[in-house]
Amino acid sequence: MKLALLGVFAISSLALSAAVFSSAASGVPPENASPIYGVTIPDGYRDWKFIAPAQEAPPLDELRAVLGNDIAVEAYKKGTLPFPDGSILVKLAYKREQSTEFAPATVPGASTTVQVMVKDSKKYPDSHGWGFGRFVNGKPVDAAQHETCLSCHVGNVKDHDFVFTRYAP
Amino acid sequence: MKLALLGVFAISSLALSAAVFSSAASGVPPENASPIYGVTIPDGYRDWKFIAPAQEAPPLDELRAVLGNDIAVEAYKKGTLPFPDGSILVKLAYKREQSTEFAPATVPGASTTVQVMVKDSKKYPDSHGWGFGRFVNGKPVDAAQHETCLSCHVGNVKDHDFVFTRYAP
Repeated sequence: MKLALLGVFAISSLALSAAVFSSAASGVPPENASPIYGVTIPDGYRDWKFIAPAQEAPPLDELRAVLGNDIAVEAYKKGTLPFPDGSILVKLAYKREQSTEFAPATVPGASTTVQVMVKDSKKYPDSHGWGFGRFVNGKPVDAAQHETCLSCHVGNVKDHDFVFTRYAP
Repeated sequence: MKLALLGVFAISSLALSAAVFSSAASGVPPENASPIYGVTIPDGYRDWKFIAPAQEAPPLDELRAVLGNDIAVEAYKKGTLPFPDGSILVKLAYKREQSTEFAPATVPGASTTVQVMVKDSKKYPDSHGWGFGRFVNGKPVDAAQHETCLSCHVGNVKDHDFVFTRYAP
């Protein structure tokens, strides 16, 4: 992760495995940070705890899984809403492919997007405390795509602190 | 987990979060252990690391996710085959349900089964080192169902140490 940051603000997970940076205040986002929010892919997220799977219908036709850092997972387990500052959720999305080994199964193909939500009520007062990042091949997509995040979350899941995913048993 | 065991053999994950017991040698499996193999649901598995999602077509119509203990995840990351003794994989399966909040998404409904594979080459010499457990509501299903595990894994994934799931990126 590029550390040449101006106006850096870092949140670390309990495991010190995550670092999310933003220089939104400076107006110069780091190369790998999302437009609007300045969210980056947190280090170590692939080893975070599992929250739930999902499937997205065609045309995207994806298998998905949401992982969370310790703060987010603890909030899920305790039913804490809103999610506390420092909560980070990462959605991993894959093209859904037919298994060549077991006919009834579809399995993950290529990674399509990694999507990140970071809770920081001071940093993101205009988006209900959430910062969003949507990444393809490790790079953030454009501002136009990021402008769609908030309205969809606000329109559909305002009663669950703007988070779609529930904790699977 | 019931600890009134005869002829106990325990494997602990690196995080000391897993314990799998069996008294197969004594012929008296503990109440919650699978027939044939004596595998139980490992403590703490729900916090294990995420390996991959999958979908199972109707009639089961499930969303699934496989989690692994540290030994198994390390083997996946390094491409170690066969999986070393102590590896444990847990598949969580859920009824696939339409999301009421986002039309293109299907999400986990009720838990259907929890399925466990334990690698112990000394304990399971007759099943390529793997012990199997299939659980509904925390209780193992019957011997007839457990008799189907091995043949399906042997018939389809003998070149991947009898494990279907691959590590998703």
